[in-house]
Amino acid sequence: MKIGFVGLGKMGSAMAQNLLRAGHELSVYNRSRGKAEPLIQQGARVADSPADAARHSEAVFTMLPDDHAVEEVMFGHDGLLAGLDQGAAHVSSSTISINAARRFTEEHSQHGSRFVTAAVFGRPQAAEAKQLLVVTAGDQQTVERLGPAFDAIGRRTFVVGNEPWQANMFKLFGNFMIATVLETFGEAFAAIRSSGADHHQFLEIMGELFGSPVYKNYGKAIADENFSPAGFELKLGLKDVRLALEAAAEFNSPLPIGSLVRDHFLSALAHNQEKLDWSSIALVSARSAGLND
Amino acid sequence: MKIGFVGLGKMGSAMAQNLLRAGHELSVYNRSRGKAEPLIQQGARVADSPADAARHSEAVFTMLPDDHAVEEVMFGHDGLLAGLDQGAAHVSSSTISINAARRFTEEHSQHGSRFVTAAVFGRPQAAEAKQLLVVTAGDQQTVERLGPAFDAIGRRTFVVGNEPWQANMFKLFGNFMIATVLETFGEAFAAIRSSGADHHQFLEIMGELFGSPVYKNYGKAIADENFSPAGFELKLGLKDVRLALEAAAEFNSPLPIGSLVRDHFLSALAHNQEKLDWSSIALVSARSAGLND
Amino acid sequence: MKIGFVGLGKMGSAMAQNLLRAGHELSVYNRSRGKAEPLIQQGARVADSPADAARHSEAVFTMLPDDHAVEEVMFGHDGLLAGLDQGAAHVSSSTISINAARRFTEEHSQHGSRFVTAAVFGRPQAAEAKQLLVVTAGDQQTVERLGPAFDAIGRRTFVVGNEPWQANMFKLFGNFMIATVLETFGEAFAAIRSSGADHHQFLEIMGELFGSPVYKNYGKAIADENFSPAGFELKLGLKDVRLALEAAAEFNSPLPIGSLVRDHFLSALAHNQEKLDWSSIALVSARSAGLND
Amino acid sequence: MKIGFVGLGKMGSAMAQNLLRAGHELSVYNRSRGKAEPLIQQGARVADSPADAARHSEAVFTMLPDDHAVEEVMFGHDGLLAGLDQGAAHVSSSTISINAARRFTEEHSQHGSRFVTAAVFGRPQAAEAKQLLVVTAGDQQTVERLGPAFDAIGRRTFVVGNEPWQANMFKLFGNFMIATVLETFGEAFAAIRSSGADHHQFLEIMGELFGSPVYKNYGKAIADENFSPAGFELKLGLKDVRLALEAAAEFNSPLPIGSLVRDHFLSALAHNQEKLDWSSIALVSARSAGLND
Repeated sequence: MKIGFVGLGKMGSAMAQNLLRAGHELSVYNRSRGKAEPLIQQGARVADSPADAARHSEAVFTMLPDDHAVEEVMFGHDGLLAGLDQGAAHVSSSTISINAARRFTEEHSQHGSRFVTAAVFGRPQAAEAKQLLVVTAGDQQTVERLGPAFDAIGRRTFVVGNEPWQANMFKLFGNFMIATVLETFGEAFAAIRSSGADHHQFLEIMGELFGSPVYKNYGKAIADENFSPAGFELKLGLKDVRLALEAAAEFNSPLPIGSLVRDHFLSALAHNQEKLDWSSIALVSARSAGLND
Repeated sequence: MKIGFVGLGKMGSAMAQNLLRAGHELSVYNRSRGKAEPLIQQGARVADSPADAARHSEAVFTMLPDDHAVEEVMFGHDGLLAGLDQGAAHVSSSTISINAARRFTEEHSQHGSRFVTAAVFGRPQAAEAKQLLVVTAGDQQTVERLGPAFDAIGRRTFVVGNEPWQANMFKLFGNFMIATVLETFGEAFAAIRSSGADHHQFLEIMGELFGSPVYKNYGKAIADENFSPAGFELKLGLKDVRLALEAAAEFNSPLPIGSLVRDHFLSALAHNQEKLDWSSIALVSARSAGLND
Repeated sequence: MKIGFVGLGKMGSAMAQNLLRAGHELSVYNRSRGKAEPLIQQGARVADSPADAARHSEAVFTMLPDDHAVEEVMFGHDGLLAGLDQGAAHVSSSTISINAARRFTEEHSQHGSRFVTAAVFGRPQAAEAKQLLVVTAGDQQTVERLGPAFDAIGRRTFVVGNEPWQANMFKLFGNFMIATVLETFGEAFAAIRSSGADHHQFLEIMGELFGSPVYKNYGKAIADENFSPAGFELKLGLKDVRLALEAAAEFNSPLPIGSLVRDHFLSALAHNQEKLDWSSIALVSARSAGLND
Repeated sequence: MKIGFVGLGKMGSAMAQNLLRAGHELSVYNRSRGKAEPLIQQGARVADSPADAARHSEAVFTMLPDDHAVEEVMFGHDGLLAGLDQGAAHVSSSTISINAARRFTEEHSQHGSRFVTAAVFGRPQAAEAKQLLVVTAGDQQTVERLGPAFDAIGRRTFVVGNEPWQANMFKLFGNFMIATVLETFGEAFAAIRSSGADHHQFLEIMGELFGSPVYKNYGKAIADENFSPAGFELKLGLKDVRLALEAAAEFNSPLPIGSLVRDHFLSALAHNQEKLDWSSIALVSARSAGLND
């Protein structure tokens, strides 16, 4: 398949590489060109602009930090929409708001192209190892046609609806579920440390009890206070929880743990943790308990 | 080993059975004698009282609902303490407060016997299958001596300290971690159902993302609203979260998700859910979002 | 003073009337013209558009529901900015976001006019009785020049800064303080009613303890469940708390009670309370406690 | 009336003095006798024990810190119950749990005497100025008979039921209402300070908006961070919110703001604020926002 790829951060680069490896023909674009180099050496063509990456592609992926960045790439100078063929697809893997997803869907529809969400779960290492979970939604035929591309980047694909925003909703709530785990470890460790007991031992038991890599890996990072370099920056974690809260609010659904986690992310920002991993939310509980002050 | 066992509910019966199977000599006691029958048929001796179950035993287990029940069994008429030999151990598997554990430790010490906590994680089926996690603390020699008994009931034993209450602390916070999972599923499902999306599909993705039986099993019960018969009654879930909050408070450690979960358990009680499984806490979020009213 | 007034809801009409009574020359505009009639009979000129209301006025007030409405009035067809003289002032009494206030300030500055916030505290009856509290911020000279207009509508004016958004910030947090009172009454009454005690008697004591009309009046409405007609609609209450949360978030300041109140307003919306008075947030606590189901 | 008084802290001393001034015959007892001196000089008789203070009295007041202290005074060596005449009343002004109130009611009933709650609202200065609010409940005849004593210590008396615990319930929830005000000031000030605006000015507006001495006085203490000496110690504030939560829980009523306030009081204790005034809970919000660190 002829595929464009815009946004070559850690996640995007790993995904693009796996598309290449699976034999797809790739045009890549990144604002700072340096990040494209390793892919060029592996056979990718470098594009001059999002429009250029989109031109003659059957699909163009975007992996960007937020709504605004996607908007820029779509509508900015030499933007993606300007280059995209009729009938081709814009596959958005960025974690964006459900409202933006709806707006982009409408705009592609008017342009004669397709907007498809293919959100991914997994940290950069999982992306490299082709172990992502792909959660996709959009026009059924288009989603089916994209199957081989999804197979190239993940270990399993979930098709969750005909409307792209539904996949964004699932991604946001999946991140809400993970953020809650980070927060609970923070609270439990603070209490256990305050009692004088060994929180590493508690972690070991929780690893066995839950039997989950999410608990093991994040739990260890938190127990060791190993928050840098960030796998996923705290300010992005806050953004996602904020978007989950907004999505829930649209449907008049309260999300009290979401509210609490948002408050703690804000307190983390007030203590200069924006560049630390989002698991450093645990420091907020530690400080509340008079530890780490 | 010659072992007494007091408290033959679902968990206690399964544990006692595995002690029998492992070749230990067992005296069992339960207030309502009927529950002892299946064990008697498998070779257990029935005791007339906690004192009788304790007499000449190297260790006597108690698996009872709360502090008060353990107190009754220890000090009531023909109580456990009255029968327990010098140097023998009282192994408490009940989920009790850290304060009660300290008090019982002291009282056994004065009596010349040993109090040991051996808290267990796992639902009744896990107990039957010898798959419990045993979290134990207490006098080191005594704990070591009890190793074979712990091996008989669980798949792994964690020794977490010399003071019995530390194992109770870990048990309470483990249950806090699980209760939080129940609550997050409730909140996420309510939002997803309100949006019109399919929460069973979300569950499937979470099962894959977390890779944890806790998420899969409880998630399914909540998605199906399958809360009866209870594996663990909601009123006991509230008790445990309350005890975790009290334990944290003793060390001046806030536990905000614990507070939130406690409030939701109370709302569940106000809607007559005390006999439902504790995972029915999810109904509180559903009602808040105007679902299930 | 020659004054324009756009937005003749309950609050706007009462304020406009007091400006008339104080001898100011008034041009009034409302989308649905009917609401202007009583003012026309008292000597106001009716304007055809926001631009018309602004033309030749020294100041034009807007009293509108939200950011979007103010934006429409400013920039829409025959908008306020098109009619406003150089050096004249746009006095915004609407409860809007601090970001919108900053944007409007900038846009007026480019147009050569002045944006001033004059937020008001008080319900419609207080507006009629000239008992509002006026909280104003903006260019110092302009604010001073507007003094007589503020005196005409309120019992006291507070000048809180040179930047208009600061007055919006104070208004939002004032509403947060009131919303919290509504929520606490809801929680306390639910517990007291559940206990079988008389919550009207509790209210009487609180009236005496706090000695505040806010407590007395809102407390009575809540105790009587008298939520319609709304003095201030619940959906507007939610909007204000949301804006307070956003304002706090901009400065990395958590607002946990704000988060909790927001969640309860959402639950109220899920139970069709959008048109009830915002004090009906108390119904959420009643339902949580199993009352009013 | 012949009255005993046990517990001569700031509040108790002021109340006892007003009873003396109103012409009642007073026997006073305090564990450390020094505190009785000023009252002796004004004509009070000093008692050797609670029993002695109770002997031949028509009523004996207790003003003590908690359940445990009341229990000691009632049942300890030479305790109040040992001295109290048949038909005489024990008037408890201490802020105790509703469960303790029920237990004491029962015990007095068996003894042939009466337990009456007469909770008071007001700080020590209000007590001196005879400006307390008295909230009383108990046997109707006894409460009526005590009217002159209540008139001597407060500006108004509320009779709220026939069961003493009901007055304790009202007292606990009144303190919950005040604690919430402290917390909201903390949150709002933190956001306003973070924005660079002047929180003293915000306080001035709130003083006018609410028109309440509670808002004015506590708001000023918080704005000035003037927390010592304590009018009411933070650890007692935590105790009262904890008791309100327990009382609500007994009736299956969640109290989410109560939970949040409890968590913040705990964080305050973790930062050594137990001896500061309970209004210092505001420091928790300041620290969360990265201020005061």
